[in-house]
Amino acid sequence: MRRIPSEKPSSRPEKIDTRVTTNPNFYPIILAGGRGTRFWPLSRKRRAKQLLPLDGKRTMIQQTVSRLLPLAVPKRFWVITNEYLQREIARQLPRLAKAQILAEPVGRNTAPAIGLAAFLLLRKEPGAVIGMFPSDHVIADEDRFRQILREGVQIAAAGENIVVLGIRPTRPETGYGYIEAGSSFEDRAFRVRRFTEKPDAERAAGFLVAGNYFWNSGIFLWSARTLTNALREHLPKAAQVLEQIAAAFGTRQFASTFRKFYPKCENISVDYAILEPRSAKGERDSNIICLSADFGWNDLGSWTALHEHRMAKQQFPDGNLISGQGAFTLNAERNYIHAPQKFVAAVGVKNLVVVDSPDALLITTLEQAQDVGKIVKYLDKKKMSKLV
Amino acid sequence: MRRIPSEKPSSRPEKIDTRVTTNPNFYPIILAGGRGTRFWPLSRKRRAKQLLPLDGKRTMIQQTVSRLLPLAVPKRFWVITNEYLQREIARQLPRLAKAQILAEPVGRNTAPAIGLAAFLLLRKEPGAVIGMFPSDHVIADEDRFRQILREGVQIAAAGENIVVLGIRPTRPETGYGYIEAGSSFEDRAFRVRRFTEKPDAERAAGFLVAGNYFWNSGIFLWSARTLTNALREHLPKAAQVLEQIAAAFGTRQFASTFRKFYPKCENISVDYAILEPRSAKGERDSNIICLSADFGWNDLGSWTALHEHRMAKQQFPDGNLISGQGAFTLNAERNYIHAPQKFVAAVGVKNLVVVDSPDALLITTLEQAQDVGKIVKYLDKKKMSKLV
Repeated sequence: MRRIPSEKPSSRPEKIDTRVTTNPNFYPIILAGGRGTRFWPLSRKRRAKQLLPLDGKRTMIQQTVSRLLPLAVPKRFWVITNEYLQREIARQLPRLAKAQILAEPVGRNTAPAIGLAAFLLLRKEPGAVIGMFPSDHVIADEDRFRQILREGVQIAAAGENIVVLGIRPTRPETGYGYIEAGSSFEDRAFRVRRFTEKPDAERAAGFLVAGNYFWNSGIFLWSARTLTNALREHLPKAAQVLEQIAAAFGTRQFASTFRKFYPKCENISVDYAILEPRSAKGERDSNIICLSADFGWNDLGSWTALHEHRMAKQQFPDGNLISGQGAFTLNAERNYIHAPQKFVAAVGVKNLVVVDSPDALLITTLEQAQDVGKIVKYLDKKKMSKLV
Repeated sequence: MRRIPSEKPSSRPEKIDTRVTTNPNFYPIILAGGRGTRFWPLSRKRRAKQLLPLDGKRTMIQQTVSRLLPLAVPKRFWVITNEYLQREIARQLPRLAKAQILAEPVGRNTAPAIGLAAFLLLRKEPGAVIGMFPSDHVIADEDRFRQILREGVQIAAAGENIVVLGIRPTRPETGYGYIEAGSSFEDRAFRVRRFTEKPDAERAAGFLVAGNYFWNSGIFLWSARTLTNALREHLPKAAQVLEQIAAAFGTRQFASTFRKFYPKCENISVDYAILEPRSAKGERDSNIICLSADFGWNDLGSWTALHEHRMAKQQFPDGNLISGQGAFTLNAERNYIHAPQKFVAAVGVKNLVVVDSPDALLITTLEQAQDVGKIVKYLDKKKMSKLV
């Protein structure tokens, strides 16, 4: 049995086991610029998925930072986000200084974001090992998470290795990237043979059967030197721009330099920019290591995933997970209903997702909740900016 | 084609055709003491179904009065309600004096309510003909409605006749009372053979096939003298009490007399108290006349009935009737969604009824919406009085 975090985590600062040795060179970089449109109407441009308390009382980004604090003191963290979210993130993470929360002037996906952090750290701490962490995932076993990270940091610190945490697939998911593992590197670690972005259902089923495929968790570890070298090799234009921005850090020109030059970077993910071309060199030469990460990972991709995740942690009567000021159910089964300000009555309904917010009401099904992003696309197109 | 009232009736006072001759002895009594719990969460103890604008901009009771105004000047109307609703009814019906809106100290069903009106009128206008009208029904063809009422008033004014308006059944409804018509009385009017309260499905189907059965509309016409005599015969104790209360009308003792004595009346409907025992005398001697009323009647018994009624009047895309601050639908069909303050997004849902209110959210199906009353029973039992 995995250790399951309690349903209602305390809002007090988490107790940290100070006996844990923090790695002196480890710097966690939290990527928090996403929108998470599939959690509309709760997720908005100024209150994205990572800033919501979807699983417990603390928000996703608060949980992301808390579970890393035993590995790095607060001043080692960087958060990379956008101008819409910067202020709220600073509010939610009072242990971080405001200068540690960088707002991209425009979103450029993960490669420029983590690249900027790498160039900044290279100047400050040439031996730094960087961990890149999405800010909106849940992790069931946090002790195990930290144990695997410590192993990963050691692998990343030794030479030119790029470490990616891989999750053993449990279903033929078509929404994730897959990692094909090659030869064994060490215990639970493999050389990466190939990356495959979102496969179709047939290929996904094949990967599941094959046994040597992992889901790409989006968590990477590498030294600042390895990452900056990789950027110079695979994304030379962006590398030059990012180096220029990093050189201005701490000066009065930083904000204007950041705003002026960052948009020149390509809009591209780490996976496409570095990992896929690098892996084409062959598993020996690419130095990409997949570390099998069995810590109960879930990226909470939709209301349906959240419903499943919470159901797995705790049984609710008839599968109804209702947040409300009281509730009445009759012939109601497997519904996710979020209307925290209201009394909720559900009569004769099954497999629904209903989410109430002050200005919008979502009514969908567990089956179709992955289409919620289409609502946000519609609202964007119609310029209904108050609702997005 | 019947004349269909426009979707959004003006809130200005309705223009009245003054060429219509009002019947000098006709007094409409509007019964407005019901709760209409199946329209929860919109209907509440202090804002019952009849006070809601369920079909257009004007409320059900405003429409009830408006469609009768060409037949009787405002001072001829009486409204019988309860203390929770009295003030709001007075607000909604500014043409009526406050003294015309009586609040029962306790609900005693229709027999005592209409009986009180009869004893009051007998003192004031011995030749009065009383019409008893529910305050929460819709009528599609109001001209036809008034034409039939004029005929009914004539029948009621002549002798000891009790006139009930009967609706031709269109389905084997088990929720209504049925009237079995006997011999012909005059054009479109029959002597009543028997009343049958809510039959089971098999009997209801038989009534539909037989062809000589009508739904009991709850609209009755009779002279004050006939009604008071019938009460003295069939409900002697209540008749005595009501006569005593009526005698105090206009004096300073009226309020206290009403409050003290009215609760002594039996809690019973006109149908059970008078019509059923009277009809047992045989169709010749009972003098109960059923007038066939083909004016597009609907008692809007549930959210489902309201959805059907509004769909019959106007086509909505995919059968979705959505009140909201804008809406987005995708694979959504035949839903009734009321969230007038919010943007509504419905994705992949069918046959749902969703009603938002400031403190409660209802989620049910068109099929199960008749069970909404059970929610109110639960709330009553749990003494959650703010929600009922």
